[in-house]
Amino acid sequence: MAMTGVLRPGHAQLRVLDLEKSITFYRDILGLVETGRDDRGRVYFKCWDERDHSSLILSPSDSAGIDFIGFKVLDAATLDQLERDVRAFGIATERVPAGDLLETGERVRFRLPSGHLFELYAEKTKVGNGLPSVNPPPWSMDADRGMAPIRFDHCLLYGPNVQANKDLFLKVLGFHLVERILGPTEAGEPEIGIFLSCSHKTHDIAFVEYEEPGKLHHLSFRMPTWERVLRAGDIMGMNRVPIDIGPTRHGVTRGETIYAWDPSGNRFETFAGGYEPYPDGDPITWTFEGFPHGLDYPQGKLHESFMTVVT
Amino acid sequence: MAMTGVLRPGHAQLRVLDLEKSITFYRDILGLVETGRDDRGRVYFKCWDERDHSSLILSPSDSAGIDFIGFKVLDAATLDQLERDVRAFGIATERVPAGDLLETGERVRFRLPSGHLFELYAEKTKVGNGLPSVNPPPWSMDADRGMAPIRFDHCLLYGPNVQANKDLFLKVLGFHLVERILGPTEAGEPEIGIFLSCSHKTHDIAFVEYEEPGKLHHLSFRMPTWERVLRAGDIMGMNRVPIDIGPTRHGVTRGETIYAWDPSGNRFETFAGGYEPYPDGDPITWTFEGFPHGLDYPQGKLHESFMTVVT
Amino acid sequence: MAMTGVLRPGHAQLRVLDLEKSITFYRDILGLVETGRDDRGRVYFKCWDERDHSSLILSPSDSAGIDFIGFKVLDAATLDQLERDVRAFGIATERVPAGDLLETGERVRFRLPSGHLFELYAEKTKVGNGLPSVNPPPWSMDADRGMAPIRFDHCLLYGPNVQANKDLFLKVLGFHLVERILGPTEAGEPEIGIFLSCSHKTHDIAFVEYEEPGKLHHLSFRMPTWERVLRAGDIMGMNRVPIDIGPTRHGVTRGETIYAWDPSGNRFETFAGGYEPYPDGDPITWTFEGFPHGLDYPQGKLHESFMTVVT
Amino acid sequence: MAMTGVLRPGHAQLRVLDLEKSITFYRDILGLVETGRDDRGRVYFKCWDERDHSSLILSPSDSAGIDFIGFKVLDAATLDQLERDVRAFGIATERVPAGDLLETGERVRFRLPSGHLFELYAEKTKVGNGLPSVNPPPWSMDADRGMAPIRFDHCLLYGPNVQANKDLFLKVLGFHLVERILGPTEAGEPEIGIFLSCSHKTHDIAFVEYEEPGKLHHLSFRMPTWERVLRAGDIMGMNRVPIDIGPTRHGVTRGETIYAWDPSGNRFETFAGGYEPYPDGDPITWTFEGFPHGLDYPQGKLHESFMTVVT
Repeated sequence: MAMTGVLRPGHAQLRVLDLEKSITFYRDILGLVETGRDDRGRVYFKCWDERDHSSLILSPSDSAGIDFIGFKVLDAATLDQLERDVRAFGIATERVPAGDLLETGERVRFRLPSGHLFELYAEKTKVGNGLPSVNPPPWSMDADRGMAPIRFDHCLLYGPNVQANKDLFLKVLGFHLVERILGPTEAGEPEIGIFLSCSHKTHDIAFVEYEEPGKLHHLSFRMPTWERVLRAGDIMGMNRVPIDIGPTRHGVTRGETIYAWDPSGNRFETFAGGYEPYPDGDPITWTFEGFPHGLDYPQGKLHESFMTVVT
Repeated sequence: MAMTGVLRPGHAQLRVLDLEKSITFYRDILGLVETGRDDRGRVYFKCWDERDHSSLILSPSDSAGIDFIGFKVLDAATLDQLERDVRAFGIATERVPAGDLLETGERVRFRLPSGHLFELYAEKTKVGNGLPSVNPPPWSMDADRGMAPIRFDHCLLYGPNVQANKDLFLKVLGFHLVERILGPTEAGEPEIGIFLSCSHKTHDIAFVEYEEPGKLHHLSFRMPTWERVLRAGDIMGMNRVPIDIGPTRHGVTRGETIYAWDPSGNRFETFAGGYEPYPDGDPITWTFEGFPHGLDYPQGKLHESFMTVVT
Repeated sequence: MAMTGVLRPGHAQLRVLDLEKSITFYRDILGLVETGRDDRGRVYFKCWDERDHSSLILSPSDSAGIDFIGFKVLDAATLDQLERDVRAFGIATERVPAGDLLETGERVRFRLPSGHLFELYAEKTKVGNGLPSVNPPPWSMDADRGMAPIRFDHCLLYGPNVQANKDLFLKVLGFHLVERILGPTEAGEPEIGIFLSCSHKTHDIAFVEYEEPGKLHHLSFRMPTWERVLRAGDIMGMNRVPIDIGPTRHGVTRGETIYAWDPSGNRFETFAGGYEPYPDGDPITWTFEGFPHGLDYPQGKLHESFMTVVT
Repeated sequence: MAMTGVLRPGHAQLRVLDLEKSITFYRDILGLVETGRDDRGRVYFKCWDERDHSSLILSPSDSAGIDFIGFKVLDAATLDQLERDVRAFGIATERVPAGDLLETGERVRFRLPSGHLFELYAEKTKVGNGLPSVNPPPWSMDADRGMAPIRFDHCLLYGPNVQANKDLFLKVLGFHLVERILGPTEAGEPEIGIFLSCSHKTHDIAFVEYEEPGKLHHLSFRMPTWERVLRAGDIMGMNRVPIDIGPTRHGVTRGETIYAWDPSGNRFETFAGGYEPYPDGDPITWTFEGFPHGLDYPQGKLHESFMTVVT
């Protein structure tokens, strides 16, 4: 948790085309827990082992993609301070009232240089993970319902101005750079991909340079083990969920992963593994030539759909 | 072990183009144990947990592919009986003298309807798995050398006359049909792929209908677990071994697998899992339409290189 | 599958004290599938991935223990031949009529020198594993219900005359000796434990020398992986199933295992792993001094309850 | 990483009785990397995937146990601030000069209410994990040398005044309480065990109430998976390392673990798993009656040696 008080990715609002199909997909196939619906037609989900009310909000729309991503911060004082710091950095912020999102307090919202709507909030109702807080078992029946990821882990966002994002996240929000991907040598090797952490996870958010602003590459959900990643892949096969790549391992972050698409064409990831990078570490660099193994370490292939398809 | 006394796949002789590169690959990268060299330039290997002298023989050549595959049988009497039975079936056999292959007894050799040279033998020197036979530990240092498969498991061979092969293996050699793949409906759904077992493994040998005789699709090596399959994939990435498909799971046999190519372009497999089919079971059928999930259960894709490349 | 035509452990009838509690335990906690009840109050179960009607029969009784164990053989001709061979060996046999056990054909029954009732049969109705026989997925919802073992694997029986049992199984029934445990040096190192296989499993049945005849050490159920063994242990914890030993690994057979007791005090095992010994292999020996690591390879302890408690 | 700037457990100095035996144990059996020796006879080690120079220092002595544990903090300013805060809390501190420990900067040292010597430091030379920082593979040969833990994870310390420790760690050092164990109801249920985190690990340090001050229950080393925990157990068996408990799973923190003793009788742990508790979470409570499952979730037993043996 960053020294600034930013804790973790808290929630993402995802645009879906067919709400009923999407509910079935996220609840029964991915295996999230539905926790609410609001009067704007949005449906709220959490992963079984998360404690907060919701981490994924589905919003019916004509186009797929991500509406906004929100990170939880330590408390209201932290929220106020970060709001001041973001404004001082030159980015306008607005406050979204408590309750605008069910069970969630005020959100400080601003638009990243990459075009994405980003939020910070301090309050979200705790609903628990279904296990008692006294003498609990290590898991519940929910752990086998669908793919049953344990948490919403991060998202990878595509948009312009990756370097400006990096400045904001590192200097203002207190993230640290864990891994980065360089562009082609002939273009002077700019950083075209950055993996940022506010914790000792390999990334809490990531950005890749892309012409169009505000695009989603994937929302990522954490699985406990590589064996559970395979089980997720089996469930995708059983339900004809179209897979992009995997099972495989990324060189980048060492994650053991499968990427696939939800019914609206939004890409999601189910992954396990990684390592534990702290803020005092040195970032890992992937060159343009080395990146095929960064994407798919065993195969060393640049899978085209993975590189190009976004919502 | 088939009631006829056929025990298991015993050895395969593989043609390789660059002997030194191949030795380095099979010994250090795949992680087999070198057990001998003969005066015909052949190099002999076994998997670390196998007891017999060798299961893979590399033979230097101008063209890649498989020279022959041999199965071990219970004893000399069994060998004699099977020789009689194969001849009675209408297939000519010859005897290859003991010692022609290092540390191996006489081999009864014949050509399958698919064009492949097939052998049966009763004797091969036991060299052990490096562990004591009294109070042994469960593994040795060899278990971490390279990918370190535990045994040569089976091969999949491409050639014509799959049905004639099936007759021979089922009626004469005592195998049972575990799974089968049907051809296109419009072609009348012939059986174009068969997975045969002389044990309770999902297959000890498999054939796919193909115009050219005597072709090798892959030699398969067994890994203990899905985690070790990933480790094998990592080692392939580290050594730039070109991967065909995987990691993934087959619907056919449920195997958890990676396929890749050796330096000569011969395909090999490192796999785990499966199930235990006995001779009293009923075969599983994959239709032409269902086969994409049979090949890659999560992805449900017909990977073209997997379907077409053989040596 | 032994050259004699003996295929695998087929069924075991277990005496239970409280039928309702036992049904709940075997169906909901261990996670077997109930397949029938007969007019003698017996309840029939199979493991989810087994094809035959039943592999465990619970029989209400005043005392726990095993009534009989039955192995499936290839066909009626095999059954007849084995009946002749057992009689020729000097052991009286009787035929139990078809239907005496639900969905099961005639059984040839005889009493082993160790006092145990042993049966062979050729017919049992196939009910399938719940998956289609065309284009099946690799598992079903049943695979997560309770501990969900994939098959009834073997039992370990305690009784006198282990050497006489060994003669019968090796010479008449066609099993091979995979591992053996020696007694104390001062007693002349008799073989006090034997692990016998009619397949390439590490054991299909095992015997340990014991004064009282006809005792059950444990019934064993196979789990797909070490991770699923831990999950079974978690389920035992959740349900307060008393564990004897484990999770751990045996040196003997390398099995990764937990032993625990059912509500009647019958011991059962949930295990994964092992290796693939063929009839042409050489048995592994555990000396009396080495046996602590044979029992519990990491800990090297002779757990007293494991050694002494039987039903 | 706590908002105060405390990052992680950095190093522990352990007293060992036979230095040569201990070096062999920690280097070859546990599988740490030796990184230095100093003129006071101390030997320095790191886990293969750690970046800093050392995390375990062996100090030859007449008695086993722990000399001190040090945590890394963000920078020198953080070190100064924490020094002030600890003093303001009423605990005297001293500065140990840079270089007193090889490759380590100044340490702020103080004695905890439990009697343990505790340190904070900001600088330690980075030696890397043996992998390149550009296009790295996911692991190296070091990952298979011995048990090869990936990091020094935490220690559990026994001593009096657990509540005073809790105040210091929570109010001054910025840790959060993740799990706690209550004492007997008849004694008024005091908190006798506390698991504290300065990150989203289940614990970075833990304390249990005990009469004698300054005692070590165990040093803990992290393994990547449950399969690697079994491998560690196998290595313990091969090397006759005496195991205390395991393999098993704790209810407390859900960790999948084995505990054993080094040649001096210091207990160490090799574990995997857990979950990700953030500072905004609510602690889990284990009652005195519930603690058997907290210790060993499957078995639900209070293993006596685990409870009582300390150095």
